[in-house]
Amino acid sequence: MYSVVVEHIYLLVMVTLISVLQNAFFALKVEKEGNNKEGQNVRTSGFERVCCANRNCMDAYPTFMAVMWCAGLCLNQAPAAFAGMIYLAVRQKYFVGYMGETSQSTPGFLFGKRILFFLFLMCIVGIFNYLLVHYYGSEYKEYVETITSAASALLLIP
Amino acid sequence: MYSVVVEHIYLLVMVTLISVLQNAFFALKVEKEGNNKEGQNVRTSGFERVCCANRNCMDAYPTFMAVMWCAGLCLNQAPAAFAGMIYLAVRQKYFVGYMGETSQSTPGFLFGKRILFFLFLMCIVGIFNYLLVHYYGSEYKEYVETITSAASALLLIP
Amino acid sequence: MYSVVVEHIYLLVMVTLISVLQNAFFALKVEKEGNNKEGQNVRTSGFERVCCANRNCMDAYPTFMAVMWCAGLCLNQAPAAFAGMIYLAVRQKYFVGYMGETSQSTPGFLFGKRILFFLFLMCIVGIFNYLLVHYYGSEYKEYVETITSAASALLLIP
Repeated sequence: MYSVVVEHIYLLVMVTLISVLQNAFFALKVEKEGNNKEGQNVRTSGFERVCCANRNCMDAYPTFMAVMWCAGLCLNQAPAAFAGMIYLAVRQKYFVGYMGETSQSTPGFLFGKRILFFLFLMCIVGIFNYLLVHYYGSEYKEYVETITSAASALLLIP
Repeated sequence: MYSVVVEHIYLLVMVTLISVLQNAFFALKVEKEGNNKEGQNVRTSGFERVCCANRNCMDAYPTFMAVMWCAGLCLNQAPAAFAGMIYLAVRQKYFVGYMGETSQSTPGFLFGKRILFFLFLMCIVGIFNYLLVHYYGSEYKEYVETITSAASALLLIP
Repeated sequence: MYSVVVEHIYLLVMVTLISVLQNAFFALKVEKEGNNKEGQNVRTSGFERVCCANRNCMDAYPTFMAVMWCAGLCLNQAPAAFAGMIYLAVRQKYFVGYMGETSQSTPGFLFGKRILFFLFLMCIVGIFNYLLVHYYGSEYKEYVETITSAASALLLIP
């Protein structure tokens, strides 16, 4: 029975693991900056910037996890995991840009809005599709999955 | 196989989506206040209040999600989703009240304690029920579900 | 159908419930310290320390939940729940130590790294095992579960 479940979520689990690794990386960065601060007392602003970036990333983390898992469970795991990977890449870029010098940074309180919106849309499509199938018996799921797979590739362009 | 899973969680997924929308709303509010602050430098306290409200809501968010999903999986999704909706309404009221003028606000570090407690109780009942069924073979689940459905309606009264 | 699902997750749900209780305990501590602060205005540092401990615990909470549930779903719930219990005990000790006087405290930004790492390893083993079974049809799962059960007992030693 387990294999059946794992078969449908293993990509999501992988993305989750990568995100956990990323969280640990962020936390280590914060810890290192904190240790630096004690010694030098000059780069306080650097420490605060790392803290702020970490805080923003962590605040958005449960939301991201919830949307990704819902999208993966309701519709299909492949596009959800793919969008999750892109989100993680965006987050990495955001964190590094925030941490770096001010000029090249890409601040903004929010990031990855488009990807979260895409995952959100996937959830809605999944539920809508389920309700359609449940009440009318017609089966759009195959088409919808094809479309989302194609759409998730479009995310890469910009 | 998917329809089977989705059938049992689609209400939970809907509540999750609404909570995500609410999170986005909160984040936008914080961002707007932050932009206001830069220009005026007078309403700093307003920005801090929004930040604090957002922080409190975000801190309680993973706890809420965990309890709601456990309650929905262990017992029945309908009362869990209903309680989740009420929790979101309470949170909205809390955030708006926190953001508004101090007189009408309803601060308090914690909010929605009663609803979380109710969901918590549902989890315990669900697990207890499972263990009873597993070891004694008696089937109380139907009764328990009826009772919780009735109890979740009682939450509206106060 | 429900009993089948609940059978495989009820230990995880229990650990989740305990962690929720612990979160509530932390939040109450913070609220109490905050009330104390208003009256005395002397123990500000105590309040700040509690806040900081609570913040660190809350930041790591979604990560912990994600890893524990993934490990429980992919491999076996018993060792995952056991590791989760130990993590909660470590967190409790961390919080109390942080809150207490500075001398006996065990600060450090991160805690429970080893346990999270163990859960992380369990996830990877679970996914790897699934892929092996899927592509080669050989069944290592039984052995792996025995090994992880034994390994989770080793966590207690240090």
